[in-house]
Amino acid sequence: MKILPQYSEKAGLPPGEVVFVGEQKVEQPKIHVIQYNEKDVVESDIQNISEVSKFIVKSSVTWIDVVGLHQSELIEEIGKMFKLHPLVLEDIVHTSQRPKLEEFDDYIFLVLRMFYFQDKNIIDEQVSLILGENYVITFQEQPGDIFDPIRERIRSRKFRITKSKSDYLAYSLIDAIVDNYFVILEELGDRVELIEEDLLLTPSQDTLQEIHSLKRKMVSLRRSVWPLREVVNNLDRTESPLIKKTTKIFVRDVYDHTIQVIDTIENYRDILTGMLDIYLSSLSNRMNEVMKILTIIATIFIPLTFIAGVYGMNFDYMPELKWHWGYFAVWLVMIVIAIIMLFYFRKKKWL
Amino acid sequence: MKILPQYSEKAGLPPGEVVFVGEQKVEQPKIHVIQYNEKDVVESDIQNISEVSKFIVKSSVTWIDVVGLHQSELIEEIGKMFKLHPLVLEDIVHTSQRPKLEEFDDYIFLVLRMFYFQDKNIIDEQVSLILGENYVITFQEQPGDIFDPIRERIRSRKFRITKSKSDYLAYSLIDAIVDNYFVILEELGDRVELIEEDLLLTPSQDTLQEIHSLKRKMVSLRRSVWPLREVVNNLDRTESPLIKKTTKIFVRDVYDHTIQVIDTIENYRDILTGMLDIYLSSLSNRMNEVMKILTIIATIFIPLTFIAGVYGMNFDYMPELKWHWGYFAVWLVMIVIAIIMLFYFRKKKWL
Amino acid sequence: MKILPQYSEKAGLPPGEVVFVGEQKVEQPKIHVIQYNEKDVVESDIQNISEVSKFIVKSSVTWIDVVGLHQSELIEEIGKMFKLHPLVLEDIVHTSQRPKLEEFDDYIFLVLRMFYFQDKNIIDEQVSLILGENYVITFQEQPGDIFDPIRERIRSRKFRITKSKSDYLAYSLIDAIVDNYFVILEELGDRVELIEEDLLLTPSQDTLQEIHSLKRKMVSLRRSVWPLREVVNNLDRTESPLIKKTTKIFVRDVYDHTIQVIDTIENYRDILTGMLDIYLSSLSNRMNEVMKILTIIATIFIPLTFIAGVYGMNFDYMPELKWHWGYFAVWLVMIVIAIIMLFYFRKKKWL
Amino acid sequence: MKILPQYSEKAGLPPGEVVFVGEQKVEQPKIHVIQYNEKDVVESDIQNISEVSKFIVKSSVTWIDVVGLHQSELIEEIGKMFKLHPLVLEDIVHTSQRPKLEEFDDYIFLVLRMFYFQDKNIIDEQVSLILGENYVITFQEQPGDIFDPIRERIRSRKFRITKSKSDYLAYSLIDAIVDNYFVILEELGDRVELIEEDLLLTPSQDTLQEIHSLKRKMVSLRRSVWPLREVVNNLDRTESPLIKKTTKIFVRDVYDHTIQVIDTIENYRDILTGMLDIYLSSLSNRMNEVMKILTIIATIFIPLTFIAGVYGMNFDYMPELKWHWGYFAVWLVMIVIAIIMLFYFRKKKWL
Amino acid sequence: MKILPQYSEKAGLPPGEVVFVGEQKVEQPKIHVIQYNEKDVVESDIQNISEVSKFIVKSSVTWIDVVGLHQSELIEEIGKMFKLHPLVLEDIVHTSQRPKLEEFDDYIFLVLRMFYFQDKNIIDEQVSLILGENYVITFQEQPGDIFDPIRERIRSRKFRITKSKSDYLAYSLIDAIVDNYFVILEELGDRVELIEEDLLLTPSQDTLQEIHSLKRKMVSLRRSVWPLREVVNNLDRTESPLIKKTTKIFVRDVYDHTIQVIDTIENYRDILTGMLDIYLSSLSNRMNEVMKILTIIATIFIPLTFIAGVYGMNFDYMPELKWHWGYFAVWLVMIVIAIIMLFYFRKKKWL
Repeated sequence: MKILPQYSEKAGLPPGEVVFVGEQKVEQPKIHVIQYNEKDVVESDIQNISEVSKFIVKSSVTWIDVVGLHQSELIEEIGKMFKLHPLVLEDIVHTSQRPKLEEFDDYIFLVLRMFYFQDKNIIDEQVSLILGENYVITFQEQPGDIFDPIRERIRSRKFRITKSKSDYLAYSLIDAIVDNYFVILEELGDRVELIEEDLLLTPSQDTLQEIHSLKRKMVSLRRSVWPLREVVNNLDRTESPLIKKTTKIFVRDVYDHTIQVIDTIENYRDILTGMLDIYLSSLSNRMNEVMKILTIIATIFIPLTFIAGVYGMNFDYMPELKWHWGYFAVWLVMIVIAIIMLFYFRKKKWL
Repeated sequence: MKILPQYSEKAGLPPGEVVFVGEQKVEQPKIHVIQYNEKDVVESDIQNISEVSKFIVKSSVTWIDVVGLHQSELIEEIGKMFKLHPLVLEDIVHTSQRPKLEEFDDYIFLVLRMFYFQDKNIIDEQVSLILGENYVITFQEQPGDIFDPIRERIRSRKFRITKSKSDYLAYSLIDAIVDNYFVILEELGDRVELIEEDLLLTPSQDTLQEIHSLKRKMVSLRRSVWPLREVVNNLDRTESPLIKKTTKIFVRDVYDHTIQVIDTIENYRDILTGMLDIYLSSLSNRMNEVMKILTIIATIFIPLTFIAGVYGMNFDYMPELKWHWGYFAVWLVMIVIAIIMLFYFRKKKWL
Repeated sequence: MKILPQYSEKAGLPPGEVVFVGEQKVEQPKIHVIQYNEKDVVESDIQNISEVSKFIVKSSVTWIDVVGLHQSELIEEIGKMFKLHPLVLEDIVHTSQRPKLEEFDDYIFLVLRMFYFQDKNIIDEQVSLILGENYVITFQEQPGDIFDPIRERIRSRKFRITKSKSDYLAYSLIDAIVDNYFVILEELGDRVELIEEDLLLTPSQDTLQEIHSLKRKMVSLRRSVWPLREVVNNLDRTESPLIKKTTKIFVRDVYDHTIQVIDTIENYRDILTGMLDIYLSSLSNRMNEVMKILTIIATIFIPLTFIAGVYGMNFDYMPELKWHWGYFAVWLVMIVIAIIMLFYFRKKKWL
Repeated sequence: MKILPQYSEKAGLPPGEVVFVGEQKVEQPKIHVIQYNEKDVVESDIQNISEVSKFIVKSSVTWIDVVGLHQSELIEEIGKMFKLHPLVLEDIVHTSQRPKLEEFDDYIFLVLRMFYFQDKNIIDEQVSLILGENYVITFQEQPGDIFDPIRERIRSRKFRITKSKSDYLAYSLIDAIVDNYFVILEELGDRVELIEEDLLLTPSQDTLQEIHSLKRKMVSLRRSVWPLREVVNNLDRTESPLIKKTTKIFVRDVYDHTIQVIDTIENYRDILTGMLDIYLSSLSNRMNEVMKILTIIATIFIPLTFIAGVYGMNFDYMPELKWHWGYFAVWLVMIVIAIIMLFYFRKKKWL
Repeated sequence: MKILPQYSEKAGLPPGEVVFVGEQKVEQPKIHVIQYNEKDVVESDIQNISEVSKFIVKSSVTWIDVVGLHQSELIEEIGKMFKLHPLVLEDIVHTSQRPKLEEFDDYIFLVLRMFYFQDKNIIDEQVSLILGENYVITFQEQPGDIFDPIRERIRSRKFRITKSKSDYLAYSLIDAIVDNYFVILEELGDRVELIEEDLLLTPSQDTLQEIHSLKRKMVSLRRSVWPLREVVNNLDRTESPLIKKTTKIFVRDVYDHTIQVIDTIENYRDILTGMLDIYLSSLSNRMNEVMKILTIIATIFIPLTFIAGVYGMNFDYMPELKWHWGYFAVWLVMIVIAIIMLFYFRKKKWL
């Protein structure tokens, strides 16, 4: 999870310039097209974007999935074909946008963020979505399997999706992304539990750093979900004819899910904050324990050692030294002192 | 109290799929029906949902209480019978919803959360409620006795409830759930007081963890009550003809109660936070005490031991050792030093 | 100041049931009636509520003050006489309501909270107020002298109050309650100052608990004043014909006072929070002091004791022991070491 | 800066009673009148308020500056002359109001708070302002020189002020008060810097108390500026004909300044909070340092003293004591142990 | 980054007085003019502001860039020429304004803040911008290269800018300033990372101060960006005919960027706060470590030294001293005690 969008590279460029900003994650962009209506599903991997035009027909919904964003010409061609605003194209290739929704006359432009695990790290990637009258274009940085169940549903032709228009497809894609947040949260939740156990058994500076690292991840997720919530809310409230009333009830359902995601994140953050408190107070507790032992040993033996020292002095005239039972008397005194000390500590509840 | 709704299991499913997500808590779903009006009360446990239809008549209010949500077919049948939206059915069986209110043309759909104790643990369970023209359907996960007083009131036919329409029944059920929050809070309040005593007598790391565990419970309750407050508020403001004006004054009363619940929760949270402060500062205080004793003993005896050590040296020529009163002089010096030290500590208010 | 309203006792009761919830504070309810207009003031203690009716006349304002709420029949009779809503009666006897305002067709119902000291404890009590066309009914749990100045003003017939309608009487009562908050705050402010002195002279764990106890009291006051502010604001904004425009300017004045109360409370809370910081850091400071003394004594004498120990060894061949000035040389060495140590500590600013 | 407005003295008084609440700061109230228009400026100190009437003419603006508020009769006479509401008069003499704006039919009533230094203490005083058609009345507790530059500008007749109406005069007075906040803030800022230096060189408990005292001052300032901001904002938004459109642009300028004041205060509070952190952590740091020295000295010499103790024992048969080089061997062992210890501490980065 | 705007110098001045408040950063003000339309670009450095008038023509956009604000006459002349309000001129030369937008009949006045590095310090400077029908005037304190790319774009005549009106130029300038924030943030982000490494390797009081210094810088940036966001938002929502609808989509793009800046700042602040926690707990951790070593050494050797002391006593009758193996027996006892201690510490996990 990067903190700073690499905008500084772009500073000074004119607006609307389509220059990919981000890490290139695939070698060759791929374009996958599915055209469907209630009766028919046509699917194809195309090489040239110009082939797309033949898939766009009034009676069907066409989903164009573009994977890989580093070929500026490709994005610009798509822009020309669907008459997209230059700033939309810029936002598609500048892959550190916050989720947002922008309405244009002919289409709605959505930026979403998708999270997934890669080698135990959380990767987030920008998914841009153009929702038109009878088409949906999605732009991804990397091929992912989050949208596969939707493809399956389209292919099976049994579900509501093939009976609906492009807005329902867009909804399904957003829903898939939001549902995936729960998968991420579940994994993070497992880590929180692991740390919680650690905290009780072997708390260490590492535990502290793990807590902070998880907190940061939660913050980073929240930073994506808060604007996403706004996006979904706007999708519900929009008066654009592209979103049908029957779809809006589904959009509201996604909205509820985003709130649940936020709730869960807040919950984890509270728990992690509580863990910090416990960690810090357990540090103090251990310090107390260490100090107690030192104090017990020291306060018992320091006076005794002093007594032994006294009778180790070499004065010519020390009457006690001559007493026959002097040695044993001293031992007695020392034992009595030790016992008194121990009673005192017991009274103080240190033992 | 689970943190994460088990949504991840559902990721990839098409929306509106009625698959129970939660823990199955009863073996066999039960359906209990009460039909009542001012003159008559009919009550029945039915086996087959189709029997319900004969209870639904214009002149009476029918309350259908469904306990156990894991039989998808049952929920779907009810859905068909009352023409419920697929997403409503989904929300009924996905039992980790936040409280919410959704208005449809013919009915209002409410999700509420009910809290109760089971073996000293707080269990929360989702209660879904469909409020129609002349019927109310409630969906519970487990049979509970929270609604029993309402059944009694219906049976006795002495109260306002039998003179009112379905909206008053719905209000009564919500009121019962909110009143039950006070029972939970009272129990939690007792625990807070117990901890408070512990804190003064025998503070320990366990006390700290109990404080945090109670704080989490408060947060978890609050998370249910905040949206509940919104739900009740919406019920008051709705323009739906299903809610009569005379009922709204009762709804506002419930609204006041939800605010009182929130107030009480906030109060407990403040108290628990204050306890954390007291706990941490009592740790420091005890450390101080320990250190003071160590310091008093050590600073008195270390110099004395040094003096004893000096006269324990074996130099051939040490004039003091020859003096007749040398030994007693040393004792005098040591006692004077000890007394000066004690005065110093008294001045410092350590004794 | 109780934290939890005793609502749990009420859970399961039907709404509008007039069952007193709270502590009974007087033996026998008392009803005091004042009827006044610009020319005349009639005052009477009545036994039977039915006598009230003869006091209610168009041309005068009648103030009925009911002290003691545990006789349900009495409250219910009043309810019938003035046609009050059952929930209003319920709210009057459930004496842990938050301040609130409810408008009905014929009257405005207000719940207020009154604070006073009793044996150095802050007691808060609910005052309910019904404002009708030409009457005001107040319900108190205990007789109090807060309203006495208002009675005096009525009796003297010199003030605006006898020239005004019932709304001005209601305003005067609210004003008296809010003004009394300042008396409470002044007393609490004195306690804050006492603690502040304690903090500098003899900080102890008790000081800490007093700070937290005062903080709770502030929170508890604030919890009553915040909704009170809303109540007063609503009284200003209401379009009810019961509140005249000329009275509203006085209501706004009370509103300013409630804000001043809130401001003062916030101020005290800030000060108390600052005190916590000072307390905790003074703990650390004292610990530092203790440690410094231990360290100075120990680091000076431990090396010296070691040297004494060396020459206390009984080896047959230890050349230094034979030297004539050996003993004095050792003393010299030890004094030099001690002086170096002291210089070091002075450089460290420990002395 | 007092925390509690002395309202408690007033509790029980009827509203609108003009009784001065505050400290009397001047012996004799003074009334200074300036009447001006574009062509002429007349200035006069008057003894009797009735003389004012001759200064009030349509064609000029008259500024009546009243210093000293403890003569109730004077305030009441002014009230009668200008037909002010009794509550306005009450607010003028109760000198612990929050800044506020109240619109009446013929005039606007403003309460402002002015801060200045007196013997290094911040004094705040209430300035009340009545803005009428062709006059402005200001009520101050003490004579101050903040308004002198405005008098100069009127006298010189070169500035916009003499060409404008009373609203511009009111604006100028508010502007002078707000500008003076910057003077206060600059002085406080200097103190913050002084503390910051202290914090690095000689942090002490006093530094901590100074930080808290400055924080309180900031809070106290903020408490006046926040409502002031509202007042200025209302002055901009008011539809009263008393405020001309051309003046509103100046009012907006003052509004910007109040926001800048708030910004600066927030900034200082952040800095002071950061200082607290640094102070507390420097306490911990010094404790660490002290402990390190103790530990180094103790851990080196305690084992060595033990060895010396062993060979100080008086057993009849201790072979080492007979060895010729025994003493030197023991020295060697002790030096080796000390060196190992020192290496260990160096490795731990304690040296 | 200064905290307090130097307003206090200005206190007492009449409003609209054009007196430069700030540090003079250039010797001689410079005026650079570019006049352009789709076909032609004319550029010139002028000496006298009166020359400007010939550049202002209907068919072209003229950008007048004024660098250096300390010559009041120059600013006043420009004010007269373009009929600017006196308060606008005052705001231009008082260079510690918050970003703001003010609409006038003929022009829009914008205050922006530009941040850049100078010798590793962050300098911020006020940029004022007047947007008129066919001209844009910018006022800078110092010549900077942030606007150079825009000049290049104008000169090349290939971009949208030369085809657009003055509003697009204004947008481009704001965009350049906002983009530059990312450069600053990237540099600060590098510093945050450096500190993070320091924190793990060699945490010190300096690290703490660096963290606080960075936090302050973040706060200072945020203080500029928050109102900037409002400014950009107002530019989008304005109904002024000066801002064309086609430009507004670009303005919204800048708005997104300001939100991204705020997001990034918040993120860094969270990270820095987390670092503070880690720093403080690592202090505690090191203290614990130090204490543990002291305690281990002291608790092992103090009892042993006591035993040695006992047998160093000089009593005439101490039977053990006569035993042949006494010395070795004592060694054995001491070794056993040491081993038991070590086992105990191992059990406590201190070793």
